[in-house]
Amino acid sequence: MPPSAFRASFRVVWADTDAAQVVYYANYFKFFERAEEEFYGHLGFSFREFGGRGLWFPRVEAFCQYKKPARFNDLLEVELAIGELKEKSVKYEFRVFNKATTELLATGYVVAVAADKQTGKATNIPQEIVEKLRSFSK
Amino acid sequence: MPPSAFRASFRVVWADTDAAQVVYYANYFKFFERAEEEFYGHLGFSFREFGGRGLWFPRVEAFCQYKKPARFNDLLEVELAIGELKEKSVKYEFRVFNKATTELLATGYVVAVAADKQTGKATNIPQEIVEKLRSFSK
Amino acid sequence: MPPSAFRASFRVVWADTDAAQVVYYANYFKFFERAEEEFYGHLGFSFREFGGRGLWFPRVEAFCQYKKPARFNDLLEVELAIGELKEKSVKYEFRVFNKATTELLATGYVVAVAADKQTGKATNIPQEIVEKLRSFSK
Amino acid sequence: MPPSAFRASFRVVWADTDAAQVVYYANYFKFFERAEEEFYGHLGFSFREFGGRGLWFPRVEAFCQYKKPARFNDLLEVELAIGELKEKSVKYEFRVFNKATTELLATGYVVAVAADKQTGKATNIPQEIVEKLRSFSK
Repeated sequence: MPPSAFRASFRVVWADTDAAQVVYYANYFKFFERAEEEFYGHLGFSFREFGGRGLWFPRVEAFCQYKKPARFNDLLEVELAIGELKEKSVKYEFRVFNKATTELLATGYVVAVAADKQTGKATNIPQEIVEKLRSFSK
Repeated sequence: MPPSAFRASFRVVWADTDAAQVVYYANYFKFFERAEEEFYGHLGFSFREFGGRGLWFPRVEAFCQYKKPARFNDLLEVELAIGELKEKSVKYEFRVFNKATTELLATGYVVAVAADKQTGKATNIPQEIVEKLRSFSK
Repeated sequence: MPPSAFRASFRVVWADTDAAQVVYYANYFKFFERAEEEFYGHLGFSFREFGGRGLWFPRVEAFCQYKKPARFNDLLEVELAIGELKEKSVKYEFRVFNKATTELLATGYVVAVAADKQTGKATNIPQEIVEKLRSFSK
Repeated sequence: MPPSAFRASFRVVWADTDAAQVVYYANYFKFFERAEEEFYGHLGFSFREFGGRGLWFPRVEAFCQYKKPARFNDLLEVELAIGELKEKSVKYEFRVFNKATTELLATGYVVAVAADKQTGKATNIPQEIVEKLRSFSK
């Protein structure tokens, strides 16, 4: 783990599973995003505040590689690091672990762009966010 | 089936299932709503049009009784009838069948209220909708 | 709140919302179930253990009444009480609050039946579970 | 479009949307999978049949690039082509279009591996499936 990674922990709920009795593949993207939300909470930013500034962070790319299945009630640890930080976009990198066994279950990333809600156009990530994100860069 | 019911058919997708290898219980409410959406399409109303008038149909009650499980790839038939039609609200009644076996899998209902998007307050269902809904009343 | 209710707290994640910018109506049933899962964890029962005994708790009824919308990032408190406890079934009653404002957002219930995984038939709820559930009865 | 692509069409339902009033990003992976399911139905394979042989197709990689948002009630066309076909794995490539405007909304891929349900180990894709998949290779 990079020294500066953020970690969120939560359990697999029944609703996350599918008929293979493992976590449904698309739900890893929900796990990624939940870690991101807890990360911003940890940084002291509220999403309402972003909304108040007319900012939006649409996703432009998402990737996941599945290594081992997660199952109902497993306690997960999702690690988030800042992979790449540009003026208008940020790449979050994720690793999902089974917290009890420490096994690596999945890795992935999401690229999000700062966008103006009104115009829909890409815009600069506000400086105070950039500064905080930098301390979580690899 | 009431003579005036509307029917929508679709398959259970993998994403609908859970680790009991049946459809996850909350997803029946997605099935109900999908039937409702196809019903309004059938009536010739577009949801964009509702939005254009500043109308919203928030749900105020939802109920489902589960009788037999649905499984991945089952072809379902969801029957919608208008159970109760008031000035400001409508009760949709649903029955979900396995189309191949004709078995009844679930019954339920949803009550929706017409609301003004701006004020959030309940408002009258537009007369032209009421007239169409009436022909599907039990 | 009944003196014996169990409470679980969690935030609304982005994935819970819909285009009305509130929590999607079917997701309240995920909230109910998550509270139930945390409740069993609190009681000291693991779901793996239930599975090991060949026990299953399929849902037979689910109901929700929506009073006020929940929005992204809201901190919710879901209260669970045992509404009715029979030999083979249990009715969980739920109330969902906005924890910051203490407003009641939704109420509902879920009836689950103990079932034998092999035969699919209803079976008695094990006595040690019954005893624990009783202390949360209204 | 490659001459040999398969296409599935369906509408964005309300449950697919999020508070940005567009399709939630993880749901594109549901769209991909739904197209895959319809594709196998089109080829004449039933999933029950695969299950009967003790075969499973877990996902090992998933990627999506988001170009333009899809909104509630939009009619989508999801195009599936076979990107890479190995002995034990297959890469499905997807393009999602707005069927009315013909705009390209998203592209992506999913890599699935044939696995033995009992052992969980990778196994050869059955020859009769390989032959059918080949005719959809780029």
